Amino acid sequence: MFSPLIDELMAALRCLPSVGPKSAQRMAMQLLEHDRAGALKLADCLVRAVEGVERCQRCRTLTEQELCGVCSNTRRDNTLLCVVETPADVLAIEQAGSYQGKYFVLLGHLSPIDGIGPEDIGIDQLLMLLDQEPITEIILATNPTMEGEATAYYISEKAQRAGITVTRIAHGVPLGGELEYIDGGTLAHAFSSRRAIT
Amino acid sequence: MFSPLIDELMAALRCLPSVGPKSAQRMAMQLLEHDRAGALKLADCLVRAVEGVERCQRCRTLTEQELCGVCSNTRRDNTLLCVVETPADVLAIEQAGSYQGKYFVLLGHLSPIDGIGPEDIGIDQLLMLLDQEPITEIILATNPTMEGEATAYYISEKAQRAGITVTRIAHGVPLGGELEYIDGGTLAHAFSSRRAIT
Ligand SMILES: [Zn+2]
Ligand SMILES: [Zn+2]
Repeated sequence: MFSPLIDELMAALRCLPSVGPKSAQRMAMQLLEHDRAGALKLADCLVRAVEGVERCQRCRTLTEQELCGVCSNTRRDNTLLCVVETPADVLAIEQAGSYQGKYFVLLGHLSPIDGIGPEDIGIDQLLMLLDQEPITEIILATNPTMEGEATAYYISEKAQRAGITVTRIAHGVPLGGELEYIDGGTLAHAFSSRRAIT
Repeated sequence: MFSPLIDELMAALRCLPSVGPKSAQRMAMQLLEHDRAGALKLADCLVRAVEGVERCQRCRTLTEQELCGVCSNTRRDNTLLCVVETPADVLAIEQAGSYQGKYFVLLGHLSPIDGIGPEDIGIDQLLMLLDQEPITEIILATNPTMEGEATAYYISEKAQRAGITVTRIAHGVPLGGELEYIDGGTLAHAFSSRRAIT
């Protein structure tokens, strides 16, 4: 509008999730008017992260080291392996703070229609881990979507054949969730997965 | 958490307005997993904007040129001068698309309690413009806060003494605004500024 550089910056900020034109404008103005040091720091972090961050050799999450912080942590329980779809899922579980085992990140889910088969989600590497590590239980935390369920089913078949206990995290009404605001699919699942009170 | 570089990136993203820990995390994951090219482009734009963008010599908005796009546009009406507090205000008015005159940006407002006097908001430069340019009307678009009103009053005194027409943009209930959701101050102002239907 009054400056090509600012227009370009506003356009570039749109690569961030849920940043529309209005937010991008507010961000550009805020940085240029009040936080140029923060803007330079952000630029520096972006470049270093893009150049440095790759995949953990063992679990495939994002890290700049050969092994991520969880995989290299000898105090984690290596008899438990939680299987998730994305590194963001690992972050979410870590922030919940109660899980003490290790992870394996599929980086996706089975989707025959998109040509995504077992080899694309690291099943070979997962089976190798089951072989090499003292894993006794696999906790399947793929998403409760059709593809996530199919992926969970596929892995459970393989793991049970290897003699390993397989569990699936519970799905249902979130704690503190009000029934009237829960979507129908979740409610239906919550009913069909109901348990007897003992 | 599992990577110092990612933690640093998430912290750096917090310099963006209304980006909390959860959004910063989502942004970092999205960029590293799905848009590394976008991340590098953003870093590049940040650095070039911080290094290149300064103030327009005439109106004090943000630009990397000596004169901003509005000031250097000979098709704008240079008998109208709209006075605003910030470059973001200029952007907002430009996006509304109906104003065809020029601007002057105060970069703040009078605030004796914070030691901000006329010299800090460029009043000298503003008076010089009134002297050098064929301005016939000043439109005061400072914010409808106590400081914004005081600043508008101060400028109107100076400009009227120079024989220039001074106007203030209208404040009241926004078009499409529902009365029940409008704050009390705005409503009170809308009532006290009511006009006879002619
Ligand atoms: Zn790892
Ligand atoms: Zn200008």
